[in-house]
Amino acid sequence: MASAAQPEQSIVKKDAHPFERAQLEGLMTKRFFYTQAFEIYGGVAGLYDYGPSGASLQANIISHWRNHFIIEEDMLELDTTIMTLSDVLKTSGHVDKFADWMVKDLKSGEIYRADHMVESVLESRLKGDEEARAKEAGQAPVASGAAPAVEEKKTKKKAQSAAVKLPDEQVAEFRRILAQIDDFNGEQLGELIKKYDIRAPATGNEVSTPTEFNLMFESYIGPTGQTKGYLRPETAQGHFVNFERLLDFNNGRVPFASAQIGKSFRNEISPRAGLLRVREFTMAEIEHFVDPENKSHARFNEVANLVLPFLPASTQKAGSTDVVKVSVGEAVSTGMVNNETLGYFLGRIYLFLEAIGIDTNRLRFRQHMANEMAHYACDCWDAEIHTSYGWIECVGCADRSAYDLTMHSNKTKRDLMVQEPLKEPKVYQKYVPTVNKKVLGPLFKKNAKLIEDTIMDLDQNALKQMQADLENGAAKVSAGEETFDVTKEHVTVEYKTIKESVRNFIPNVIEPSFGIGRIFYALLEHSFWAREEDKERGVLSLPPLVAPFKVLIVPISSNEQLSPLARELSKKLRSLGIASRIDDSSATIGRRYARNDELGTPFACTVDFASVANGTITLRERDTTSQRIGKVDQVVDVVKQLCNGRLDWKGACQILPAYTGTQDVDSA
Amino acid sequence: MASAAQPEQSIVKKDAHPFERAQLEGLMTKRFFYTQAFEIYGGVAGLYDYGPSGASLQANIISHWRNHFIIEEDMLELDTTIMTLSDVLKTSGHVDKFADWMVKDLKSGEIYRADHMVESVLESRLKGDEEARAKEAGQAPVASGAAPAVEEKKTKKKAQSAAVKLPDEQVAEFRRILAQIDDFNGEQLGELIKKYDIRAPATGNEVSTPTEFNLMFESYIGPTGQTKGYLRPETAQGHFVNFERLLDFNNGRVPFASAQIGKSFRNEISPRAGLLRVREFTMAEIEHFVDPENKSHARFNEVANLVLPFLPASTQKAGSTDVVKVSVGEAVSTGMVNNETLGYFLGRIYLFLEAIGIDTNRLRFRQHMANEMAHYACDCWDAEIHTSYGWIECVGCADRSAYDLTMHSNKTKRDLMVQEPLKEPKVYQKYVPTVNKKVLGPLFKKNAKLIEDTIMDLDQNALKQMQADLENGAAKVSAGEETFDVTKEHVTVEYKTIKESVRNFIPNVIEPSFGIGRIFYALLEHSFWAREEDKERGVLSLPPLVAPFKVLIVPISSNEQLSPLARELSKKLRSLGIASRIDDSSATIGRRYARNDELGTPFACTVDFASVANGTITLRERDTTSQRIGKVDQVVDVVKQLCNGRLDWKGACQILPAYTGTQDVDSA
Repeated sequence: MASAAQPEQSIVKKDAHPFERAQLEGLMTKRFFYTQAFEIYGGVAGLYDYGPSGASLQANIISHWRNHFIIEEDMLELDTTIMTLSDVLKTSGHVDKFADWMVKDLKSGEIYRADHMVESVLESRLKGDEEARAKEAGQAPVASGAAPAVEEKKTKKKAQSAAVKLPDEQVAEFRRILAQIDDFNGEQLGELIKKYDIRAPATGNEVSTPTEFNLMFESYIGPTGQTKGYLRPETAQGHFVNFERLLDFNNGRVPFASAQIGKSFRNEISPRAGLLRVREFTMAEIEHFVDPENKSHARFNEVANLVLPFLPASTQKAGSTDVVKVSVGEAVSTGMVNNETLGYFLGRIYLFLEAIGIDTNRLRFRQHMANEMAHYACDCWDAEIHTSYGWIECVGCADRSAYDLTMHSNKTKRDLMVQEPLKEPKVYQKYVPTVNKKVLGPLFKKNAKLIEDTIMDLDQNALKQMQADLENGAAKVSAGEETFDVTKEHVTVEYKTIKESVRNFIPNVIEPSFGIGRIFYALLEHSFWAREEDKERGVLSLPPLVAPFKVLIVPISSNEQLSPLARELSKKLRSLGIASRIDDSSATIGRRYARNDELGTPFACTVDFASVANGTITLRERDTTSQRIGKVDQVVDVVKQLCNGRLDWKGACQILPAYTGTQDVDSA
Repeated sequence: MASAAQPEQSIVKKDAHPFERAQLEGLMTKRFFYTQAFEIYGGVAGLYDYGPSGASLQANIISHWRNHFIIEEDMLELDTTIMTLSDVLKTSGHVDKFADWMVKDLKSGEIYRADHMVESVLESRLKGDEEARAKEAGQAPVASGAAPAVEEKKTKKKAQSAAVKLPDEQVAEFRRILAQIDDFNGEQLGELIKKYDIRAPATGNEVSTPTEFNLMFESYIGPTGQTKGYLRPETAQGHFVNFERLLDFNNGRVPFASAQIGKSFRNEISPRAGLLRVREFTMAEIEHFVDPENKSHARFNEVANLVLPFLPASTQKAGSTDVVKVSVGEAVSTGMVNNETLGYFLGRIYLFLEAIGIDTNRLRFRQHMANEMAHYACDCWDAEIHTSYGWIECVGCADRSAYDLTMHSNKTKRDLMVQEPLKEPKVYQKYVPTVNKKVLGPLFKKNAKLIEDTIMDLDQNALKQMQADLENGAAKVSAGEETFDVTKEHVTVEYKTIKESVRNFIPNVIEPSFGIGRIFYALLEHSFWAREEDKERGVLSLPPLVAPFKVLIVPISSNEQLSPLARELSKKLRSLGIASRIDDSSATIGRRYARNDELGTPFACTVDFASVANGTITLRERDTTSQRIGKVDQVVDVVKQLCNGRLDWKGACQILPAYTGTQDVDSA
């Protein structure tokens, strides 16, 4: 449906005024899509409030997400707590590893994220070098043609950029550092800071050595101060700790997927880049639990022919960012994408992003390099969307393997396993030890349990040896720092025939994880343009599927005769589930249209005196500004079809004749 | 629509097995509606995770809330941050006043909420007294016939209940204390504890004197530890700090309403009572901004004839809990409910609760007594729902007057005002002072600003006097602790004609605030019953509007011939937006029906061999267990109408003939 509208929209945009981020940001605040939180108190970096237009756009994106993933694929929805017991995040590794390195300006006390600071200073020096070389060559400075940033962190900083030429080998060295900036740990960042005399960009002061800062917000649960909690940094752990119940709900079988939409938190050191790096954000996460030995997907054929833009790790390693356009089927069969389930989700992610209005020419799937993977992941593809900040990771699609379930199982001693009945029982022989606790206990006292555990953990070879040793009188057990002699009285080892009718395994997890705020922002950039004839005002060409309001109702004047029809129209649309707004302000009709172009409202119905007399209304389309006319019920029906995707504007024009009223409504 | 289904549902329930809370709770865990969070780590009190059935039920309740309020009334939706700057909550009064009193067991260290502990111990003693008196009179102990608890806190405690007779005057005293337990402050609670030797219920140990514990979770924003934040205890402040932008979005006019659905947090001292007192919960809040001089509502007539059960403060003061059943129109015209807007929302709340399936015979609107009002409220009606815990506050509908906007405006020096153009300019005369800063500054130096501010704040009488004094040579200004002499050279006072064409005012706020988790729980209690013939298994008679899944699809056997039709049916329903589940497990069909009765699934479609041969399927209704038959598309159409409320089961029975297959499907 969105793709049907795409060509026309693209044509309109070709004539558009070039994109200016400041103009979009101005519109976002003015029409209250979003704003910095606590603005009247001076604001807090990295926290944003969504206003009516933004909240509605976000709700529509989420609603389509729920239909596209949860309903369409029978996923098990969850709503787990944000406040998370510290033990859980200790087990998952977040307490120890979910941290960034920070440095402090030794005089002002201002804090910087260490890698971002090093990056911005080195970039600045390279820029200065470029300028100096251009000057030397008598040329105007060239616009930086560097490869687009993989993350959004490439915002240029003001300070430390002077036209100073650097030695060739230093230029090469800086470039090498920047290419692998994600790989440095705190110590290494500290060495770079020392070696290249990197100072606080705002003041030029020296900075401290990097220290680690955990990105989770910390609090205490209850009044005793003894139960520590963190605000979750992802919704995923809420799925894992409920795995047993989810499995039970699915009658004990895999594959199945759970899904959750909710807020997560990261206490960023120094958030910038608007909605792209924030401290509180809405995520939508799927955890698809699958047999590690069979990662096929029952609906794979539905996406197998879909051609996606892939950027595999091998290409990046070769220093290129050229995407490979192949079908999902081919990507999986050649092994570029590891398995069907991963491939299936990449396809579904693509279809979702396309439907809500992301320009798929500015979308790519980038595979993580081995060194940038999160601590829990064994393979990962990011859906990256291109914006004025560069390429932004908007959806991560990671194979978390059995990492989390294994960790939680070890910690809690709960069996987080799938029991698969085997069609044919598995029969084999193995050595099985039996410990005689009654004798072992009194004899070895406090060491008895340790000895028993050690024996039970022995592998088959060791057990075979023990059986032989016991036959020969005694076997030695090394437990802790001591060695103990045991005899047949204490322990026996038998070579038994085992018959297994059930296979136990910890499932693997494929996790598509959506940053709704980033998708939201990218969508706004892709939808925003300005008409060449009205550069000051923007237009948001949002698809009807997600537009905050679908229809603007405009009474042509404030004459009271027009109100009943406007209200009736509003009621009719509402009963069809179509969100509309009446604008009966005293602004000119052209101004009212323009205001609603800014809100991304795709259609407008004008109520005039002909409407009252003849029961007709006009229908205006936002992107083309063209107007058609029809009887009220006919127009309502066309709008309904336009909104549910059964009709595009071209089709609508075949049903409704052009409006030929003598009055030029748009410029009234 | 829900009301259409109500009578039938009630009939079924009349034959039902008596309600047992433990049975409902067992069902909730078994079918994963909700469970204690971090259960595999031992759990945390007051934190709950919602599983697939619960999350879906909750999402459906919220979805209807959004339609009923936001869409239907053109409210401005917001999504503001959970993490809240401490300054904001300092201004709103929460940092100072949002606290409970706690006491500590002096030996074990266990912490109790002071009022709850006093209450439970006194209740226990009264119960012991009742038992002793019954024994004395040779009767069996009487079931406590006390008036239903207003809050859910009346959970009986195990300890300190012995059959000990109390003096008559002490019984009366305890009853008086219990009736006003909400009114005691920490010092008074401490006195009660001393006077009546109240000890920790679990151990019998002495407890500490009560200390205050703020109920907000505290954290720090950013790495410096200097910016304090709290997790919001309500969503309301997010509306107020954005008031300027909301007003602007609404073209500068009131009334309008903003609405927000989201998580809030209260760090309860010692949460009990399941979902009714939790530390993290979903709220849905409306802030309706209205002219304080005109609280009429444009759509009031839509609810004016609706008869509601009111429990006004006057009735409660007279010691009664008998509700008054009158129409909203009468309630407002007699002044029992203060204004139309408040009345309108009480009506809308009633209709919402009725539609999602709350038994309106167990619903009342209770007015707050003056002493129990929150610190910001000037009038408040709670929608209370009766459950096995007593009457529970589920929706608060408070008139917060201009409290919050005034506080934020004072603190931030921002004009949080509505400017209403006056039809006729207001003309009047007043005394206006003018300060000559050029002279005042050099003369009074550091006191100059203080003197100026003092003069500008003088009232009309004082200015009149000052004018006269200045005419006579000099006037005195008392500023700070000093008095200064000023002359005409420093300040002049003129009697001016003022013409005002705009009226400035801070709007009042009417706030309907919904605790979604409490409504969710009450709905489950109202929907739960067990068939007399199958007491072990529960049925949840949830209306189709909110039921987690609408249709169960049951292939009668695992024969592969049946799968395609089951899948096709599922796809057809999905395309109509109807959530279904296929249960192709090997359980008997009766067992599969019963399992879905537990999930509240209202309809089941059985696919059998006749379906494949004749294209027919049977349709089973959950509450009556009656079954009808029809062609696939006809059944799908009936289900669609049943789900969107255009048809009830009686109507469905007129369209589809009874199923007369020889096989008794329910007991297969």
